Amino acid sequence: MAHLISLLTNTDARGNLTVIEKIFPFDIKRIFYIYGVDSSVRGKHRHHLTRQAAICIKGSCRVSNQSGKGLPVQEFILDHPSVCLMIEPEDFHWMDQFSPDAILMVLASEYYDPKDYIFEPYE
Amino acid sequence: MAHLISLLTNTDARGNLTVIEKIFPFDIKRIFYIYGVDSSVRGKHRHHLTRQAAICIKGSCRVSNQSGKGLPVQEFILDHPSVCLMIEPEDFHWMDQFSPDAILMVLASEYYDPKDYIFEPYE
Repeated sequence: MAHLISLLTNTDARGNLTVIEKIFPFDIKRIFYIYGVDSSVRGKHRHHLTRQAAICIKGSCRVSNQSGKGLPVQEFILDHPSVCLMIEPEDFHWMDQFSPDAILMVLASEYYDPKDYIFEPYE
Repeated sequence: MAHLISLLTNTDARGNLTVIEKIFPFDIKRIFYIYGVDSSVRGKHRHHLTRQAAICIKGSCRVSNQSGKGLPVQEFILDHPSVCLMIEPEDFHWMDQFSPDAILMVLASEYYDPKDYIFEPYE
């Protein structure tokens, strides 16, 4: 099941600093971020191996997720740089409702491999 | 010497996607990002070991850098999510001129260790 974690954030008079260190159960091999996106639905896949962590660093978006056949669809609103959604390989997920200023960053446990993607939804 | 690299960015009708994969000469052990910052100058240190990559994912800022005693100060403007500044351990660097919306992300080769910081500037 996908689940939210809260990232350590230090706030002082100079501003905010959010840190990611020693909190994921994987090494970060790939990072990508999407921005300037339209209203298209993104994602719609799960993986064989890849574990991911998703953070909406700016703006907001919705991530929907189904972790297996017959399981309910989870919905998460990512709307702060300290909110991080952990996504497991079995999590069939999709993203929409991007705010115009949204920047969604994803940290992944594996290098890109098209063979690691499963595009067939659960029923 | 610090130097800029350009991150692979795929742009289509749905928006932009910038990828970081297999391009740094180090594994990413720590990520931090600063936002909502005031006009304070940040940084002002170099490292014994840590190598870093800095990206202004939103807005803009200036990074100044001196790589050794008597060497000229380099200036870099980071103003696009695909512009990445590679910072070596010997690079004494500081950041300022943050735009109000700036989000500066730093990817680091080492876990946080206060003993890895050198705060004395070159002359």
